[in-house]
Amino acid sequence: MRYHTRKIVKPGDLNPNNTLFGGRLLEWIDEEAALYAGIQLENRRVVTKFMSEINFVSSAEQGDIVEIGIDVVKFGTSSLVLKCEVRNKLTRKTIIRVENITMVNLDESGKPTPHGKTKIEYVKDRLELSEN
Amino acid sequence: MRYHTRKIVKPGDLNPNNTLFGGRLLEWIDEEAALYAGIQLENRRVVTKFMSEINFVSSAEQGDIVEIGIDVVKFGTSSLVLKCEVRNKLTRKTIIRVENITMVNLDESGKPTPHGKTKIEYVKDRLELSEN
Amino acid sequence: MRYHTRKIVKPGDLNPNNTLFGGRLLEWIDEEAALYAGIQLENRRVVTKFMSEINFVSSAEQGDIVEIGIDVVKFGTSSLVLKCEVRNKLTRKTIIRVENITMVNLDESGKPTPHGKTKIEYVKDRLELSEN
Amino acid sequence: MRYHTRKIVKPGDLNPNNTLFGGRLLEWIDEEAALYAGIQLENRRVVTKFMSEINFVSSAEQGDIVEIGIDVVKFGTSSLVLKCEVRNKLTRKTIIRVENITMVNLDESGKPTPHGKTKIEYVKDRLELSEN
Amino acid sequence: MRYHTRKIVKPGDLNPNNTLFGGRLLEWIDEEAALYAGIQLENRRVVTKFMSEINFVSSAEQGDIVEIGIDVVKFGTSSLVLKCEVRNKLTRKTIIRVENITMVNLDESGKPTPHGKTKIEYVKDRLELSEN
Amino acid sequence: MRYHTRKIVKPGDLNPNNTLFGGRLLEWIDEEAALYAGIQLENRRVVTKFMSEINFVSSAEQGDIVEIGIDVVKFGTSSLVLKCEVRNKLTRKTIIRVENITMVNLDESGKPTPHGKTKIEYVKDRLELSEN
Repeated sequence: MRYHTRKIVKPGDLNPNNTLFGGRLLEWIDEEAALYAGIQLENRRVVTKFMSEINFVSSAEQGDIVEIGIDVVKFGTSSLVLKCEVRNKLTRKTIIRVENITMVNLDESGKPTPHGKTKIEYVKDRLELSEN
Repeated sequence: MRYHTRKIVKPGDLNPNNTLFGGRLLEWIDEEAALYAGIQLENRRVVTKFMSEINFVSSAEQGDIVEIGIDVVKFGTSSLVLKCEVRNKLTRKTIIRVENITMVNLDESGKPTPHGKTKIEYVKDRLELSEN
Repeated sequence: MRYHTRKIVKPGDLNPNNTLFGGRLLEWIDEEAALYAGIQLENRRVVTKFMSEINFVSSAEQGDIVEIGIDVVKFGTSSLVLKCEVRNKLTRKTIIRVENITMVNLDESGKPTPHGKTKIEYVKDRLELSEN
Repeated sequence: MRYHTRKIVKPGDLNPNNTLFGGRLLEWIDEEAALYAGIQLENRRVVTKFMSEINFVSSAEQGDIVEIGIDVVKFGTSSLVLKCEVRNKLTRKTIIRVENITMVNLDESGKPTPHGKTKIEYVKDRLELSEN
Repeated sequence: MRYHTRKIVKPGDLNPNNTLFGGRLLEWIDEEAALYAGIQLENRRVVTKFMSEINFVSSAEQGDIVEIGIDVVKFGTSSLVLKCEVRNKLTRKTIIRVENITMVNLDESGKPTPHGKTKIEYVKDRLELSEN
Repeated sequence: MRYHTRKIVKPGDLNPNNTLFGGRLLEWIDEEAALYAGIQLENRRVVTKFMSEINFVSSAEQGDIVEIGIDVVKFGTSSLVLKCEVRNKLTRKTIIRVENITMVNLDESGKPTPHGKTKIEYVKDRLELSEN
C-alpha cells in the first residue's frame, strides 16, 4: 500500500469528544479514493459505488498527522476496486481500514462505461511514453 | 425508520461532477448516528466503531433536499447498533444505505462502558417522568 | 411545531467564548426554512425575504444536540410565512426563536410568482396520490 | 454608518439558486456585530441577545463584492445596540438591513455585567492615551 | 494604508498549537487583495500572480480581532501591485506583512489585458460622476 | 522533491472566476509545510515564520488533481527551511512555487528552541531503530 496524502488534525476536524470526527475521516477517504481512481482511469467522471465494512481501529487527536494509503484490489470492466488504510504518520498505528471501495467509471451521460485499464500505471511512465 | 435531519445540497457539497460528494454524505451519516446515539444513551462520549457495507444507490444534485433516517438494530451492553438510510425527501428515492453502524459508549477515560439502556426512549417521556 | 433537523455542536461551530456561534445558528435556521419552504411549495426557487425579531434565549455548548422546529404561520399568494424555534434536544430548553420568516416563491426569471398552495402537505400523501 | 469588512461572494457561499445564501449573510452580520462590540466594549465576552426585523432587500451573485456597515444605536448599561447594513460595494445597492442588534456584555461567569462605556471610541485614541 | 476587513479568530481558524493557522491568514490576505483589485480595476477577472516575501511577525489567538490593510504600490498596464499588512485591531501589533502582491487583470478568455487605471479611485466619486 | 499530499479541486475551492482560489492553495501549502516540519522535527509546536516569493505559475480548474511537493533546503538550529511546488498530478504542469518556507521549532512556552536535527529522516528508519 502506498501512502500519499497527509492531513494534520485541526480543531475544526474534531468531534465533541475532542478526538478526530469520524465523518471527517470518511470524507478524507472518499476524496482520496476518488482522486486515486481519477488518476488511474484518466477520467474525471468516477464515483463511489460501494464501500465494504469500515473498522474504526483507533482514534486521532488534535495535532496528529495522519496519512492515507490506497491500494488497488482489482480492475473491473467499468469499475476499480480499491482498499484504504489511514494511519498515524509518526507511530504507524492504524486508525481506520476499508477493504473494498468500488469506484465506477462513468461516461458523459453518467452511465457506467468500460475504462480499458487493467493495471496500475504511473503518471511518470505515461508522460515519458507520450513524449516518444 | 424515522427520518429527522434534512439537508439541502448546496454548491459547497458537490464533487467535481456536480453531484453530491460521497464524502459529504458519509460525514452527514456519521454525525446523525453520533447524535442519535448520544440522545439514546444520554452520554456525549459515544464514538463510531464500525460501519457495515455502504451502498451508494443513487446520487443527488444541487438543490435536492435529502433526509436522513436512523433506526436501532440492537442495544448491546456498551454498544448501540444503528442502521441508516438517506433518501431524497420529495421522491423518496434511496441515495445511500448502511445496515450496521456500531456506536460505542465510553466512560470519561475513553474506555467502553455499559450504558444500561435496552430500548428506544423518547425524550418527551423522559422529561415527563422526571417531572413526577 | 414539528422538529426535524438535528445538529451536534462541534468545535468548528463555536464562537471565541466557546459557546455556539450565533451566526452559525442563523445559518442553520435559514437553511431549514429554505428547505421546508422548498418541500411545501415544490419549487427550488424559494428565497428568504424577511425575518422578524430574533430572540437568543439561551446558548448551547460543544457537544449539545439541538433540534430545529418549523411551523407554518400563513400561506400567502406567492409567499409562505414560517416560524422557527431551535431548542436543546435533551432538555427542550429554547435556544432561539423567530416568529416570522417570510419565504418568497420565485419563477425562473427570479420574480415572485403564485405558488397555488394553501395548506401543509405531506410528501407521503402526495406520493400516494400520484400512484393512483 | 461606517463600512469596514468586505467579502467576495464565492461558489461556497451560494444557495442552490446560485445567489448568495441568506444564512451565510446572517453569519457574516453576526460576526461583524460581535467583533464591533468586542472592540467598543474591550471585552471578548460579548454575545448576541436580540436582532430586530431583517429585510432581505436584494440579493448578490457569485463574484459580487459586499461591504458590511455597523453603527451604534445606543449604549445601554450592560448592552450595546447596533444596526447593520450590507450593501454591494460597487453599486451601493442595499442587500440586507437590520435596525437593532443587541449585544450583551458578559463577565467571566457568563452573566451580564456593566461595561462602563457611553460613546464610540477609536482604537487610535485609546492607544495615544495609554502612551501618555 | 487603509484597514477595512476585520476578522475574529474562531476555533475553526486555529492550528494544532491553538494559535491562528498561517494558511487561514494567507487565505484572508489573498481574498482581500482580490476584492480590493476587483474594486479598483472594476473587473471581476483579476487573479493573484505573485506575492513577495511574507513575514509572519507575530501570532494571534482565539478571540483576537484582526484587521487587514491594503495599499497600492503601483498601477501597471495590466497589473496592480498591492501591499498588505494584517494587525491586531486592539493593540495594532503587526501579525503578517507582504510588500508586493501582484494582481493581474484578465479579459474574458483569461489573458492579461490593460485595465486603463492609473490611480486609486473611490466608489463614492465614481457614483457621483455617473449621476451627472 | 517528493510529492505526497493530493487534493482534488472541488466547487468549494473555486474563486469567482471558477478557477482554483489562490488563498486555498496557500492554505494547502502552509498545512503541508507545517506537517512536513512536524514529522522531521518530531515536534508539534512548529510554526511558519517566513515565506519567500510565491509564483502563481498557472491555474487549476474544478476536477483537477493537484499534488504538493516539499523538499528540505536547510536544517537551521531552531528552524527548518523548506521549498514547495504544487503541480497538476496528470500533466505535471507547475501551478505554484515557493523557494523558501522557514518553519520554526518552538518549546512549550512558544519560544524558538534548537531541534537537534541535521538531515531528513524517514519514519520507517526511526521505527526500526526504536525496535532494536
